[in-house]
Amino acid sequence: MVPRYTRPEVAAIWSPEERYRIWFEIEALAAEAMAEAGAIPAEAARDIRERGGPRAAAISAADVARIDEIERTTRHDVIAFLTWMAEGIGESARFMHQGMTSSDVLDTCLAVQLTRAADLLVTDLDALLSALKARALEHKLTPTIGRSHGIHAEPTTFGLKLAGHYAEFARNRARVAAARAEVATCAISGPVGTFASVHPRVEAYVAERLGLRAEPVSTQVIPRDRHAAFFAALAVTASGVERLATEVRHLQRSEVREAEEFFHPGQKGSSAMPHKRNPVLSENLTGLARLVRSHLVPALENVALWHERDISHSSVERVIAPDATIALDFALARATGMVERLVVYPERMKANLDALGGVVHSQKALLALTQAGMSREDAYAAVQAAAMRTWHALGTPGAANFRDHLLADPAVRARLEPAALDAAMEPIRDFMHVDAIFDRVFTEV
Amino acid sequence: MVPRYTRPEVAAIWSPEERYRIWFEIEALAAEAMAEAGAIPAEAARDIRERGGPRAAAISAADVARIDEIERTTRHDVIAFLTWMAEGIGESARFMHQGMTSSDVLDTCLAVQLTRAADLLVTDLDALLSALKARALEHKLTPTIGRSHGIHAEPTTFGLKLAGHYAEFARNRARVAAARAEVATCAISGPVGTFASVHPRVEAYVAERLGLRAEPVSTQVIPRDRHAAFFAALAVTASGVERLATEVRHLQRSEVREAEEFFHPGQKGSSAMPHKRNPVLSENLTGLARLVRSHLVPALENVALWHERDISHSSVERVIAPDATIALDFALARATGMVERLVVYPERMKANLDALGGVVHSQKALLALTQAGMSREDAYAAVQAAAMRTWHALGTPGAANFRDHLLADPAVRARLEPAALDAAMEPIRDFMHVDAIFDRVFTEV
Amino acid sequence: MVPRYTRPEVAAIWSPEERYRIWFEIEALAAEAMAEAGAIPAEAARDIRERGGPRAAAISAADVARIDEIERTTRHDVIAFLTWMAEGIGESARFMHQGMTSSDVLDTCLAVQLTRAADLLVTDLDALLSALKARALEHKLTPTIGRSHGIHAEPTTFGLKLAGHYAEFARNRARVAAARAEVATCAISGPVGTFASVHPRVEAYVAERLGLRAEPVSTQVIPRDRHAAFFAALAVTASGVERLATEVRHLQRSEVREAEEFFHPGQKGSSAMPHKRNPVLSENLTGLARLVRSHLVPALENVALWHERDISHSSVERVIAPDATIALDFALARATGMVERLVVYPERMKANLDALGGVVHSQKALLALTQAGMSREDAYAAVQAAAMRTWHALGTPGAANFRDHLLADPAVRARLEPAALDAAMEPIRDFMHVDAIFDRVFTEV
Amino acid sequence: MVPRYTRPEVAAIWSPEERYRIWFEIEALAAEAMAEAGAIPAEAARDIRERGGPRAAAISAADVARIDEIERTTRHDVIAFLTWMAEGIGESARFMHQGMTSSDVLDTCLAVQLTRAADLLVTDLDALLSALKARALEHKLTPTIGRSHGIHAEPTTFGLKLAGHYAEFARNRARVAAARAEVATCAISGPVGTFASVHPRVEAYVAERLGLRAEPVSTQVIPRDRHAAFFAALAVTASGVERLATEVRHLQRSEVREAEEFFHPGQKGSSAMPHKRNPVLSENLTGLARLVRSHLVPALENVALWHERDISHSSVERVIAPDATIALDFALARATGMVERLVVYPERMKANLDALGGVVHSQKALLALTQAGMSREDAYAAVQAAAMRTWHALGTPGAANFRDHLLADPAVRARLEPAALDAAMEPIRDFMHVDAIFDRVFTEV
Repeated sequence: MVPRYTRPEVAAIWSPEERYRIWFEIEALAAEAMAEAGAIPAEAARDIRERGGPRAAAISAADVARIDEIERTTRHDVIAFLTWMAEGIGESARFMHQGMTSSDVLDTCLAVQLTRAADLLVTDLDALLSALKARALEHKLTPTIGRSHGIHAEPTTFGLKLAGHYAEFARNRARVAAARAEVATCAISGPVGTFASVHPRVEAYVAERLGLRAEPVSTQVIPRDRHAAFFAALAVTASGVERLATEVRHLQRSEVREAEEFFHPGQKGSSAMPHKRNPVLSENLTGLARLVRSHLVPALENVALWHERDISHSSVERVIAPDATIALDFALARATGMVERLVVYPERMKANLDALGGVVHSQKALLALTQAGMSREDAYAAVQAAAMRTWHALGTPGAANFRDHLLADPAVRARLEPAALDAAMEPIRDFMHVDAIFDRVFTEV
Repeated sequence: MVPRYTRPEVAAIWSPEERYRIWFEIEALAAEAMAEAGAIPAEAARDIRERGGPRAAAISAADVARIDEIERTTRHDVIAFLTWMAEGIGESARFMHQGMTSSDVLDTCLAVQLTRAADLLVTDLDALLSALKARALEHKLTPTIGRSHGIHAEPTTFGLKLAGHYAEFARNRARVAAARAEVATCAISGPVGTFASVHPRVEAYVAERLGLRAEPVSTQVIPRDRHAAFFAALAVTASGVERLATEVRHLQRSEVREAEEFFHPGQKGSSAMPHKRNPVLSENLTGLARLVRSHLVPALENVALWHERDISHSSVERVIAPDATIALDFALARATGMVERLVVYPERMKANLDALGGVVHSQKALLALTQAGMSREDAYAAVQAAAMRTWHALGTPGAANFRDHLLADPAVRARLEPAALDAAMEPIRDFMHVDAIFDRVFTEV
Repeated sequence: MVPRYTRPEVAAIWSPEERYRIWFEIEALAAEAMAEAGAIPAEAARDIRERGGPRAAAISAADVARIDEIERTTRHDVIAFLTWMAEGIGESARFMHQGMTSSDVLDTCLAVQLTRAADLLVTDLDALLSALKARALEHKLTPTIGRSHGIHAEPTTFGLKLAGHYAEFARNRARVAAARAEVATCAISGPVGTFASVHPRVEAYVAERLGLRAEPVSTQVIPRDRHAAFFAALAVTASGVERLATEVRHLQRSEVREAEEFFHPGQKGSSAMPHKRNPVLSENLTGLARLVRSHLVPALENVALWHERDISHSSVERVIAPDATIALDFALARATGMVERLVVYPERMKANLDALGGVVHSQKALLALTQAGMSREDAYAAVQAAAMRTWHALGTPGAANFRDHLLADPAVRARLEPAALDAAMEPIRDFMHVDAIFDRVFTEV
Repeated sequence: MVPRYTRPEVAAIWSPEERYRIWFEIEALAAEAMAEAGAIPAEAARDIRERGGPRAAAISAADVARIDEIERTTRHDVIAFLTWMAEGIGESARFMHQGMTSSDVLDTCLAVQLTRAADLLVTDLDALLSALKARALEHKLTPTIGRSHGIHAEPTTFGLKLAGHYAEFARNRARVAAARAEVATCAISGPVGTFASVHPRVEAYVAERLGLRAEPVSTQVIPRDRHAAFFAALAVTASGVERLATEVRHLQRSEVREAEEFFHPGQKGSSAMPHKRNPVLSENLTGLARLVRSHLVPALENVALWHERDISHSSVERVIAPDATIALDFALARATGMVERLVVYPERMKANLDALGGVVHSQKALLALTQAGMSREDAYAAVQAAAMRTWHALGTPGAANFRDHLLADPAVRARLEPAALDAAMEPIRDFMHVDAIFDRVFTEV
């Protein structure tokens, strides 16, 4: 992922140095378990830990370059790493990696990296949930127009909008947590997963120490449906980011102006047009969502490896595992900041709510008329006609509003007194269940 | 989905008639709840149920055409349906759909359809799991070569291969079950989800009768992250079908011939080449997997609807909801039949296992040498050299095998007696943990 | 594709009857060429044409069912068809399909179908281009605000917007035409493409009669990169439909109201809210674009067939070839109608253009200041400050506009006389190159 | 893209330094054109070129960091760059970027970068085409079995296989060249593409000097359908790489062993199994193809920008433009090396060709029988029966071959003398049109 969208904590998980440190840890733990089982000498395991540990801990960019150099001969990354470790461990190094296959190390390492990345993403989601909840409570009863098809529908509250996003991200948090569990498995099962040369106890030991579960049946590799499910959870979450971003982009439109991303002092919206304040964060989030989604298809294509494994998944994962987690981490953090600092304009919300001459109360009028005995079809026609008349006169000074147009219809007037209509269209009715919804969203576990 | 890949039971869920029947049920239940709450007259609810019920139950293709005709005027499908129902219910029909919005009906109906489809898929998966388990147990100790990169690696058993697929489909079953729970929600919350004109008790009542949960916060629509997660589960499952199909396609290759799809009497493999017996089922499954996966991206693109909803998701779902569930149902059933009737050739497995002169035991030799004190690097070089010598002489009559080439190396001979080498390469070692793996796969809940 | 999005002309291409007619035509042509080359008796070719022709021309649903029935035994579609044809042709039928392989028929048939579908799409695009051009010319100088980031930027004209879409669809027309050429090849080359049992002259003859080119090198199948490129052109075109639809959806927003889809008499926007007039066509087009795009990934996955071919592409193409062409045909026709009948509100465009107090002229002020000698940085700061002041007072009665705020800044006033500023911000400057752009768009070949 | 898959020449195109150099060149050219038109002073354009040129040419990592620092205040990358340039140019800098908008610079720069990258890809494709052609000619008549469905079909030659890949990559070369032309446009048209503050002559001048065409109608941005088509061409090309890689992977399978990737001295196939020589290049290419394909969907999602532009495409392109071109450049170069050094085993091809007892000649027998007067159905049945008998006895010492099984059938014997059958099944018939195919593939322009 490009530096612009990379935060250090998640990037650190994917550095070559960290990867080698995890590889070493897996090898050292496996050696300990083998020594315990009598498969290799106890002093070999001790040497590996004591001499190899500091070497791995202190691994430098120069060491990484040295391992790369060895790989240019062996054309095999794990063998290059083992060769480099052996230079520091000496004689006992020959007991390292005994009966194991490269994938035992690679896949278990990937599990460690993905679970750590997932932990960060869950933390990011918690921050975003907090921000959404705080702003939702703040605007629980801030009236705003609800829109379907981009057309004014009926009143809602800005807090309800945010509550909807909160509920979605709460689901996404659960999905990411489930995805973490999917990939949190360890395989130390040898070349075709039969444990022919390494005892299952080694796997159990390594898994336990790394906080992973043993993979029930591996075939040299940990099966890739787990990883596909992982990236699917990220893609769904990214789409939630896009939905939130799309809402902000709409609210900041010049014609709407109900909310605005925070505009920093010194910030310039456009090189040409100094008046511009653009929703660049939310537009950026929209693009990042596309990126995170794009990693899913190759992850799905990785599932059908040939026989006990082929290595076609490897180049894909070298790219998408860091890129998807880094981009989503960045996007969630950016979304959180955007929500926390979002500038909300309740007065503009009010102005927009009133802008259509009251037609947004058409359903309440419709209900009042049917309850007063008019057939559904006739009531619909009467209300639609009054609404259209109101609509077409919008902007005309002194134009009648929806209520008046409606009452000017004799058929309506025959059924409803003005006071009854006014009572039916009373705005308070719109928000009487907001508390109940908030209870459902914010008090559920 | 084209008829060729459509089975009747799942197709029935998606018929127009069934959709209208579900719509009616939702409207009738909502009316009952409203009547209970005093929002509409009790006799209206009774009329709706008593007059509308039989009308909905008996809905015919001609009725569907009539509703379509009404829709050509209203350009609104739910209104067209309500108009048609009103023709049969009479006066009381005006109390139907009171305070509700079309999406209340449409989205709750989709939830009913998707959960029913998911139930079928779970049943399909159970059948596939049974078939895989039966064949896995049958071939638990049938030796076969394990392959990584398409190259012979070490021995495994055919049962272990199938156990791996079993474990993957067990995970897929859990994913589909979780996806079912994701979409099993009901929304009867009015135009922008505020319950402004319909009481939450109506939603609770309808949800409970339909076996759904109330959607905590809806915005005219049930949020589409739920559906995206649903299609993601299907896509991951389809990829598992592809992995299984790919295995069979490989095993049936002319050069491998270890297993074969059942070839029916009368079946013709090729119009030109009468000798052909092609793995057409598994190739077909590979294509079907591509189709089911392809439904996921549009489902993800559906998440970011505008404001409280736009209707861009609707055309997508009209196609992918039936297509993905129908294609996956077909694929799972076909995969089950393929597994059940798969013709397995243990003697060919044995022949392939022995075809490379014993090089597939190279790791066991490597281990024996390092444990006998040779450095890892030296042992690797010796074993690789012997393997290459064996490899290059493959097919030459009277050529030495891997064991003999190895023992011809003085450095090897200095460390290992022939008997010790033979003991180390004893095939029995390969399968000693198969029981343990089967226990993990088949006894876990 | 569901009936709702299917138009008869394109659907006819994909009917089973039509497919069998094309199959017959290929077989009959091939027989003629073989007879000419002396490979089969002349009377056989004549019998095939004379007895088979009417049989194929009159093929009925019952015949289709009969062929399906045969296929249930042979499990091979082409053999089933040949068997059915033989029933009508008699003795000479044994010379049909001589030396050919099923894919010769299937792939050449698909080429015929795809090129016909492409022809329809090109016709559809021509209609859309006409509609866009007519409306672009009509509104060539209708002023409207240009928006970047959803924020008012500078004036443009509604005609220019449409000219941009015209230019894009002109490119898409070229892409679809190029895609048609990609797939317009014929292969009659036998089981592995070597012409071992069928002379290349047969292929040349069939190709020429069907208006196709001979595939330079086929491998039982026509290579699938051609089809992938075809679906890519459709996906790009569909994305152009989405861009046009998105523009309309934005323009119809309640706050914008600059244009509106035609609302039919009798049409109902919402079952709950009679006032609603929703941009349902453009929202529908957005969803259809997602569908057409979704067909591309499986088409790309179809490219890497195994060896000389596997049949995994077949199930994919049975679905996506009709679905993508049918959905895009429908979408283009719907888009054309939407453009033709689009209700445009120039007065609303004018009102929106003026709504921000003139800040949309900020670049012209910036230029005037830098040209009057102010540094770029100072000028930017002055203009941004005046714009922000204007912005924040929007809606306040009697608030000063951008021009006045700017002139109230002494640094500005020191450089520019009011008259000079007014001249610089003269709206006419915005449109002086519209003619030149129209010339580029509409007169280029 | 990760360093492992990055070659320096293509990476250089995408470095921040190079991007800034191109930005400068665009600004300097625009200033020259403006000076020529009298819009800015001639000495300003000269200063920009003379003072800015060396500054841009010598741009260092430290300068990049400085620009980044400025951007942290302005939150606008082009303004940050202009500010940094102004520091070196002085007074005249205020005439830089006059009447332009950031996208004029950004999009024209992207066009320069994409066309350069496309040029490299075309060069890569030429190298791959050369390698394929050389090996195709070398193995023009090397017999090998053609396979459909992974099952032996009929003989072909290894050269024909490669000719098929050559023809596909020749098409891909044309597609990439067409894609280059798609994106080779320049836009210097101001904030909403109206040329309100910059004359079209400026655009024409810049375009001409940069080897681009003027974009007929831009809307602040160059329309993104062009870029989508670009990435589509890359995705189709990548799928061709996958097809080639899949062929090699199959040929190198242990059971097939007809060809092998070059295995370097010192290379290690497996950390556990010293005997392994794995097709790691082609597996890697398979994964890289998935990556390049994955960039297409977000590029398609970028098309429907809002109104005159939104910036959601930007984050996507920052990643996919370098990543897709870098990964494909790497893949093509790797594929070329793989083809050049591919170790081919004609004797193994011969052995496999003969391995099925001659059933691969079944079509020729079928033709001989129908031409001798047997009905197609009877001939098919006879040939299929003989083939099945041969098949089932494969591996049995002394088993009869297909020819003998066929002649043992009295119905066959009644129609055909052994000599006639032998003549019909003469292998030479398989290759008599290879020359003609090679002529079509390699002599076409």
